[in-house]
Amino acid sequence: MKVGVFDSGVGGLTVARSLQQSGCFSELLYYGDTARVPYGSKDSNTVTRYALEAVEFFNGADVDCLVVACNTVSVTALEQMQKFSNKPVYGVLEPGVMALQQLQGIDTSARVLVIATRSTINSGAYQQQIQALGYSQVDAMPTPLFVPIVEEELYDGPILQETFKHYFSKLEKPDVVLLGCTHFPLIAESISDYFNGAKTIHSGEAMLSWLKQHLDLSAQFESTPLHIIATENVDAVKRTATRWGLKL
Amino acid sequence: MKVGVFDSGVGGLTVARSLQQSGCFSELLYYGDTARVPYGSKDSNTVTRYALEAVEFFNGADVDCLVVACNTVSVTALEQMQKFSNKPVYGVLEPGVMALQQLQGIDTSARVLVIATRSTINSGAYQQQIQALGYSQVDAMPTPLFVPIVEEELYDGPILQETFKHYFSKLEKPDVVLLGCTHFPLIAESISDYFNGAKTIHSGEAMLSWLKQHLDLSAQFESTPLHIIATENVDAVKRTATRWGLKL
Repeated sequence: MKVGVFDSGVGGLTVARSLQQSGCFSELLYYGDTARVPYGSKDSNTVTRYALEAVEFFNGADVDCLVVACNTVSVTALEQMQKFSNKPVYGVLEPGVMALQQLQGIDTSARVLVIATRSTINSGAYQQQIQALGYSQVDAMPTPLFVPIVEEELYDGPILQETFKHYFSKLEKPDVVLLGCTHFPLIAESISDYFNGAKTIHSGEAMLSWLKQHLDLSAQFESTPLHIIATENVDAVKRTATRWGLKL
Repeated sequence: MKVGVFDSGVGGLTVARSLQQSGCFSELLYYGDTARVPYGSKDSNTVTRYALEAVEFFNGADVDCLVVACNTVSVTALEQMQKFSNKPVYGVLEPGVMALQQLQGIDTSARVLVIATRSTINSGAYQQQIQALGYSQVDAMPTPLFVPIVEEELYDGPILQETFKHYFSKLEKPDVVLLGCTHFPLIAESISDYFNGAKTIHSGEAMLSWLKQHLDLSAQFESTPLHIIATENVDAVKRTATRWGLKL
């Protein structure tokens, strides 16, 4: 199975990495809209328009399905993308919520913290889906500074720790942190440590798990070639991919 | 005199503020390309294309000159803008360098630090102009995290202080810090304090001073109406303008 992966920039590479490392896919085609990143501060009409341009690209590409590796797009434009795509389109929202339900030792009495960009949190999409499943203690916190901090490769250290205090010091300690932005897996360990070992949910692992369950996949490929396309500065995206452990 | 002010987003409001507070101008028209901000990570062809769209807008607008309140555009696209504009176009680079030369108690033996986004620093434009004037001790440091920190309104405090240490701890203490990004005036005081009272150069004040010297202006208007146009989310730009002390 060949999979298309769409993100506004480089964040979705963490999802592509999970798919690549799984050995379940024959080929990956990553498309990053780096010329117009970030989407998180744009309004929903604009995000939808950009997402439909990506659909048009993937409609002409040799892939079997399309993974939206961007939380902003998944909560904003998924239905429109599904309507105009000529192949199945999967967003990260549903897999993330499913991963929460399947976490060992976690039931609906657990305290769940959702962190994401401002637009994803303001949409309320994660919070609503999680509460609808019966979880009663759900906090949500926009943590926009994590994106540039990750892009500066400061995966731990004093700036990140001070930023944790800034965003988290008034929250009760969560049992689970749902990482609602594809940049955040790179600081998942630091977040978990800050909260004394809270579990974290990673969009890439959640998506892989969801695809395995829904598409009956198994690990069968020794390697999965990854092709990267970007609307701007594709070399920078490739460098980030290499630094983040993807194989080009 | 009616002045057009162009920036990729909200940063240029600090320049508009200097112009508005001066009382030298009858009217200001601010145009922020918020749908495509930030420019700092885009390549020069893309930045030039966007800048020429702004020129097209201002060619049809009732203003007497155009101020480019964005360092990235000023170092990348100023000549092209001047070529296609039907009115004078002024960038922030030359005024910033002039302000350095006119600083009291500072001569070419002073240690100068230029801070800006990665693209402005990588262009080398400030460093070259300053060294060409005979300054021998010129450091340059890209400080991209300052932009989102300012946008989170963290003008001082532990995150900013840790970020100062991250960028500055290995530098020799400068006598002057040239703020090569229009977001940075909001943290100018904190930067000066960190460096034990180093002087700072602010693009807005530098531009005002440059315009006064070149256009023979004087303070004559009790108030200067400011009109704001943005390619996306104009209400957010207006809110930022109000928070930053501009009068709408």
